[in-house]
Amino acid sequence: MKRTALLLVAVAAVAGLVAFTAPAPGPADQQAAPVFGIKIYPRYRDWRLVSVAHEEGNLNDIRAILGNDIAIKAYRAGKLPFPDGTVIARLAWSYVPSEENNKAFGRNQSFVPGPRPDWYLQFMVKDSKKYAATGGWGFAQFDKDGKPAGEAQHKTCFPCHEPAKASDFVFTRYAP
Amino acid sequence: MKRTALLLVAVAAVAGLVAFTAPAPGPADQQAAPVFGIKIYPRYRDWRLVSVAHEEGNLNDIRAILGNDIAIKAYRAGKLPFPDGTVIARLAWSYVPSEENNKAFGRNQSFVPGPRPDWYLQFMVKDSKKYAATGGWGFAQFDKDGKPAGEAQHKTCFPCHEPAKASDFVFTRYAP
Repeated sequence: MKRTALLLVAVAAVAGLVAFTAPAPGPADQQAAPVFGIKIYPRYRDWRLVSVAHEEGNLNDIRAILGNDIAIKAYRAGKLPFPDGTVIARLAWSYVPSEENNKAFGRNQSFVPGPRPDWYLQFMVKDSKKYAATGGWGFAQFDKDGKPAGEAQHKTCFPCHEPAKASDFVFTRYAP
Repeated sequence: MKRTALLLVAVAAVAGLVAFTAPAPGPADQQAAPVFGIKIYPRYRDWRLVSVAHEEGNLNDIRAILGNDIAIKAYRAGKLPFPDGTVIARLAWSYVPSEENNKAFGRNQSFVPGPRPDWYLQFMVKDSKKYAATGGWGFAQFDKDGKPAGEAQHKTCFPCHEPAKASDFVFTRYAP
């Protein structure tokens, strides 16, 4: 009995640790995305801000682009190409008006993040050897529940990023 | 001579440190904003993301809301009111179309940060004693060069935030 109780305490402690260090989504047994084999980085929501954007049209989302320490350092130094170990995360939320903000402003002008869309989370991971065939970058997309997109979708990532070759295939600039 | 050289090395070292720890704006001798006496927090650009937003109309900006560690912890715990020591930073950039992104998407849909507007940087600082008369919050606004807005403008902060009393006078919700 005593042993079981201790085990339960240990499990609870580990569960608490996971809950603290890994904001949803991203359980430890998380599925890797196809093609590039990338999993959700557990601490991505703690990364620093690169920039923000709004996409109209079919996407109609508002997004934040975050970077791990290597990414932020490279962005601020303004040096290209990004070094191996760079990881850039793109978080997107549906684009919704804020009734509360609009009341305070006295007019309809304020748009804020709503629920997560199916393209909630993307990563670009720099590994110039592993991903040599795609400009040194691996790509991954996960939905609102942390489920990776399919193989066909992942094959569209690099062709879409190719026009940004001059900035090492990265569209997002650092917002100072 | 030797003493002068050493002094110069020391000054250069400190200047280097400031440049590294305090991304622009915010020199060490930065002017405090009126009314609440708040200065720019040197490391605000390293803080973690709370949310993003787009304001149409006269503002026409795209913004990021960042929080210091106390703010992020409180937001994630979902507990109100925010504890003393909470600091929330609001960064705004002019809202501009991205030609490069639009080319990649094949349509005009992408909006990104442009130059800093005059209302580039704001802080909300929780100190329930010092700022008791304004809901426990001090407010500050700085322009694109780190210059504080005037006294009259700072007197408009709290009245505008009063409708958000139910969320401790804070409009921005955490974007999960």
